[in-house]
Amino acid sequence: MTALSPHPDRLFPADPGTRDIARRLYGEVATAPIISPHGHVDARVLLDNEPFPDPAALFITPDHYVTRLLHALGVPLDALGVGAAAGEADGRGIWRLLCRHWDAFLGTPVRFWFESELAEVFGLIEQPNEASADTLYDELSARLAEPAFRPRALFERFNLDVLATTDDPADDLAAHLALREDASFRGRVLPTFRADRYMTPGTAAWAPALDALAEASGIDTGSYAGLLDALRSRRAYFQAAGGTATDTGVLTADATPLSDTQAERIHVGALAGEISEADAAAYRANLLYRFAEMSVDDGLVMQLHAGVHRNTHRPTLERFGPDTGHDLPAVGGYTLPLAPILNDFGTAAGFHLVLFTVDETMFSREIAPLAGFYPSVYAGAPWWFLDTPAAITRYRAAVTDTIGFRKTSGFIDDTRAFCSIPARHDMSRRTDASFLASLVATHQLTEHDAASIARRLVADQPRGVFKL
Amino acid sequence: MTALSPHPDRLFPADPGTRDIARRLYGEVATAPIISPHGHVDARVLLDNEPFPDPAALFITPDHYVTRLLHALGVPLDALGVGAAAGEADGRGIWRLLCRHWDAFLGTPVRFWFESELAEVFGLIEQPNEASADTLYDELSARLAEPAFRPRALFERFNLDVLATTDDPADDLAAHLALREDASFRGRVLPTFRADRYMTPGTAAWAPALDALAEASGIDTGSYAGLLDALRSRRAYFQAAGGTATDTGVLTADATPLSDTQAERIHVGALAGEISEADAAAYRANLLYRFAEMSVDDGLVMQLHAGVHRNTHRPTLERFGPDTGHDLPAVGGYTLPLAPILNDFGTAAGFHLVLFTVDETMFSREIAPLAGFYPSVYAGAPWWFLDTPAAITRYRAAVTDTIGFRKTSGFIDDTRAFCSIPARHDMSRRTDASFLASLVATHQLTEHDAASIARRLVADQPRGVFKL
Amino acid sequence: MTALSPHPDRLFPADPGTRDIARRLYGEVATAPIISPHGHVDARVLLDNEPFPDPAALFITPDHYVTRLLHALGVPLDALGVGAAAGEADGRGIWRLLCRHWDAFLGTPVRFWFESELAEVFGLIEQPNEASADTLYDELSARLAEPAFRPRALFERFNLDVLATTDDPADDLAAHLALREDASFRGRVLPTFRADRYMTPGTAAWAPALDALAEASGIDTGSYAGLLDALRSRRAYFQAAGGTATDTGVLTADATPLSDTQAERIHVGALAGEISEADAAAYRANLLYRFAEMSVDDGLVMQLHAGVHRNTHRPTLERFGPDTGHDLPAVGGYTLPLAPILNDFGTAAGFHLVLFTVDETMFSREIAPLAGFYPSVYAGAPWWFLDTPAAITRYRAAVTDTIGFRKTSGFIDDTRAFCSIPARHDMSRRTDASFLASLVATHQLTEHDAASIARRLVADQPRGVFKL
Repeated sequence: MTALSPHPDRLFPADPGTRDIARRLYGEVATAPIISPHGHVDARVLLDNEPFPDPAALFITPDHYVTRLLHALGVPLDALGVGAAAGEADGRGIWRLLCRHWDAFLGTPVRFWFESELAEVFGLIEQPNEASADTLYDELSARLAEPAFRPRALFERFNLDVLATTDDPADDLAAHLALREDASFRGRVLPTFRADRYMTPGTAAWAPALDALAEASGIDTGSYAGLLDALRSRRAYFQAAGGTATDTGVLTADATPLSDTQAERIHVGALAGEISEADAAAYRANLLYRFAEMSVDDGLVMQLHAGVHRNTHRPTLERFGPDTGHDLPAVGGYTLPLAPILNDFGTAAGFHLVLFTVDETMFSREIAPLAGFYPSVYAGAPWWFLDTPAAITRYRAAVTDTIGFRKTSGFIDDTRAFCSIPARHDMSRRTDASFLASLVATHQLTEHDAASIARRLVADQPRGVFKL
Repeated sequence: MTALSPHPDRLFPADPGTRDIARRLYGEVATAPIISPHGHVDARVLLDNEPFPDPAALFITPDHYVTRLLHALGVPLDALGVGAAAGEADGRGIWRLLCRHWDAFLGTPVRFWFESELAEVFGLIEQPNEASADTLYDELSARLAEPAFRPRALFERFNLDVLATTDDPADDLAAHLALREDASFRGRVLPTFRADRYMTPGTAAWAPALDALAEASGIDTGSYAGLLDALRSRRAYFQAAGGTATDTGVLTADATPLSDTQAERIHVGALAGEISEADAAAYRANLLYRFAEMSVDDGLVMQLHAGVHRNTHRPTLERFGPDTGHDLPAVGGYTLPLAPILNDFGTAAGFHLVLFTVDETMFSREIAPLAGFYPSVYAGAPWWFLDTPAAITRYRAAVTDTIGFRKTSGFIDDTRAFCSIPARHDMSRRTDASFLASLVATHQLTEHDAASIARRLVADQPRGVFKL
Repeated sequence: MTALSPHPDRLFPADPGTRDIARRLYGEVATAPIISPHGHVDARVLLDNEPFPDPAALFITPDHYVTRLLHALGVPLDALGVGAAAGEADGRGIWRLLCRHWDAFLGTPVRFWFESELAEVFGLIEQPNEASADTLYDELSARLAEPAFRPRALFERFNLDVLATTDDPADDLAAHLALREDASFRGRVLPTFRADRYMTPGTAAWAPALDALAEASGIDTGSYAGLLDALRSRRAYFQAAGGTATDTGVLTADATPLSDTQAERIHVGALAGEISEADAAAYRANLLYRFAEMSVDDGLVMQLHAGVHRNTHRPTLERFGPDTGHDLPAVGGYTLPLAPILNDFGTAAGFHLVLFTVDETMFSREIAPLAGFYPSVYAGAPWWFLDTPAAITRYRAAVTDTIGFRKTSGFIDDTRAFCSIPARHDMSRRTDASFLASLVATHQLTEHDAASIARRLVADQPRGVFKL
């Protein structure tokens, strides 16, 4: 048997002096409550508080970080249960596949998170491999059946203070509202307003989305003016349910506004089935501008995730659907495309615009310079392909020169894997402690100041940036 | 009270063995004379040798590194005296604002420079914060009134060997010429020829600029041929005043030449108020080519700073003017746009072309490969958003593989903050010593060779590259 | 005299603890056989086994890494023998030029390789400089005349297991075939199919290339269909001679297929001297797609080197020809241009597509994400301007998060300098050992796992990726 025992000094710098500093800085925040201002856990999981399903359905099938590398090694997605109806897939078989290929994850943060999670959340003591696969599967299955491993018990144990979900504007937020009413549940589970699907006139999904929104809001979305009204109404609804932020994902950040007349013409044309690609793009750009305008009005924090080509492998999309590992980073850009928003709202009181990227060349060239001038702009934490110890360190090295720490968002875990939340935040805390320690060891910061920054990064920063 | 005491080992590597090497390498250059081949100090300051104004007007209001982060934290620019008439702003109030927000600069090079400067130039012993603000302001004001803190005394104390300024071709260089005549002043203060404003036909500023140049040169600039003659004449005038270099700032480095007929047509049209955007761009590109051609002829070093979107925030521009913190980096490019210059002059005898960028992806992809083939091309030091310990280290790591150290320009401080010059050069010397120490510690260089390179980087390199 | 004695710990991390780990990991692979799956050595050198020519003709004139930096320092290419007929140049004079400028290479990998090579292959003990130049030249000349320094003896001594060459499809591979038949030679020398020159309709070189291919294959290449048949036939011929891979170098990776009718029309038109630039580009893109299609059919590994502007300095091209140091990196891109290949063949059984770049921004943004989803895609080792300790470390740091080590190609030396092969692979082994040691020292890998990865990177990875 190979022991599973994450080292207490993991991710700390190799140099003994710097490591000692990192240990002390980490000690300041190791057990601090977790604020998770951006993620994809389903609020209903916490409301229902049912036991989690089998280990494969919990850890593997829905996690594209895991399935994409297995796929890249030649494991077909259907062997991993992707695209299968719930309950159809063979959980034990899927688990064995992961264990068989576990060494391919050496050096990756997926392995790092996973091992922390198995050891620290589930108390396992053996490394996954072909020999241990069945034992581990049985142990995990047994744990998941225990009351202490139900969602609410874990929420308590994880010391989760705030958990933001991601929700469609037409969602009734029933789970969020019920959790707020539930005196037995003390955590804050907040909805995040994500209106991406209303930005796609010309696709088959658009008209049904408008209908759903009309039903949810009681406002006719057959016109552009109606859509804006309905969105405003739902934003207010989200705020009433505790929401403090929106999120928007786009390929490019173009935010050129249209006149109401132009936008109305495109809207009506698209409903009638007549829209050019250029008009669809112009409509999207205009909505992005309007989302900023609405945020200035109602104070909801605007998160922007730009620069991902979605669903690039047509055969996989057709067979397995979206979000199955073939979204790929694009060349990023914020300075020019966001100019209309920044010119009009960049210094607007109370406006918060958090910029994320998967193109790390933007950290020093665009995001830090923007966040270093505009009071509204914050440098979002590295995300998706970049939420790893090495990339987070590069991010800190790239943005700190220009903006220090106060204009950075704090870590976001962006995960749908509830049980990985502590491991991900722990990774971030260790990485930031190590970065700060390197500044202390090179006499760029005192340890006293570094400790204050470390505490701020897990508390005041996310609370302030996301208005929590 | 929190002590202000910059650590003698600051910026040296954390590893004790490597730190020892860095200390010794730094010792080779710590007190070497400063060569500042590119900056924005006004020569008149040295000629007049008047006491510096109050601390806010000296350290804060004119320094966009400082004001932009304060602005990003929500401090309005007018509260910092930006855009105010001289003497109007409340110096003490501005100073208090900086002290109140001083912790936001933790981890940034601005704080690093500033602390070095306050401690080592002005002998302060207390950290800026709300409690110390008034005491520090009074102490600084008192120092600034002393003879030892007048510009020429500081010039001596800073051990400044060469200081290059940046000047318009129409400038009469009276201050430079007077300083040359002044037997009591031993430093070299050299003008740099910056002809950017003659590249902007179609703007309101262009015709008045042509008039000023005509008056300065005595050559009619109503024609393109006349403009070229006038520029050549003023270049000779700058050379006679000690100038060795020009500087040009452009958004893109496009350098496609026009025929004289084409250029003349655009010039005359623009004066008559008729010019298309495409023609304006073509005119700019042609002038960039002509500047290279002139450098080949007269031997003035050509510095090129490409890739900055200027004055991006319209409301701030309208209210506070240019150079107020909202210039932002663009995606860079040199290989293709500079092809006409490189094809025609890349191997011309005596031609020196120093390339700067604020897009650090260009270091390994364009600048080092160009400087590694063309005898004329030098890799300019990291600049603006990138003149920081972390970015300079990345620059060295990116370019050294391809060009070693001999095709790099040596540090430029690019500052208008006279009192920060020693702190900035000291930062560079420490950073280069640390980089060299890392090569010694990993047995890629001997310490003997590293020491020779360290000395070269502060002396032979800038002297050779800038023809000083 | 300055001693030439490469340090046994060179390139290992400075931190003593991490260095100890790196030493042990390196020990696992230091003497492992060399697999060189991509390079430019001429197979005839090994067949003929003649003594190497004089030191300048062996080490300097054909190596653009060396000549380009000398040129950048002002040494004319003709003084280095570039473009001269064989035997014409003054070997000793060229050697002296290198020695005189040897300090300009301080800090570069060229110096690193060269010193390793001179010390470890040729047993020299003195640093090159002006004083030692003649002695070293005489010593090297004497060594090269000894039987132990003939190509085959060195091949043995270098412990070369596989050496792939780069060959034109019309090549008869006589040397490769003779070496296979030669019982006295035990190494594997494999041809690589490089069909770049058939992708250039509209250039003067294209029709003669088609003729040569027709003669080699016995298939009429006057039609597009004929060209495809001829290429398929020659690929089979290469496979029969032991070839396992193709290589293609393009400026952009556009791979949009044409219909046979369209392609045929362009082909025939080009032969008749009528082709537009757009058609030439479309033809190239289509051929790239067809090369992928052929690889799916016949199993030859497809290597793709995109993103180099070739022969950018017209005067140097005209006077000295191609491959003389003025090829320059372009902005890279794979995700969008390769979409047609990836959509159609990305998951095809047995298809291997190895992606190389000289734009390192692509490592984390495009190459790792592609290799982390598509079973066919591998992240090629850093190449050309990037095959250096610093850039390789950045590559590992950029791709490991997303793909670990199994989807990386292993080192390629890409060299025509036969005697530098061991030094280059040794550099790679030291660099990877150091990277792995840093993961061990920060408890991201166990040393046991790191040792297994180190061994895999020099054996199983290249064997698997290149089907050796």
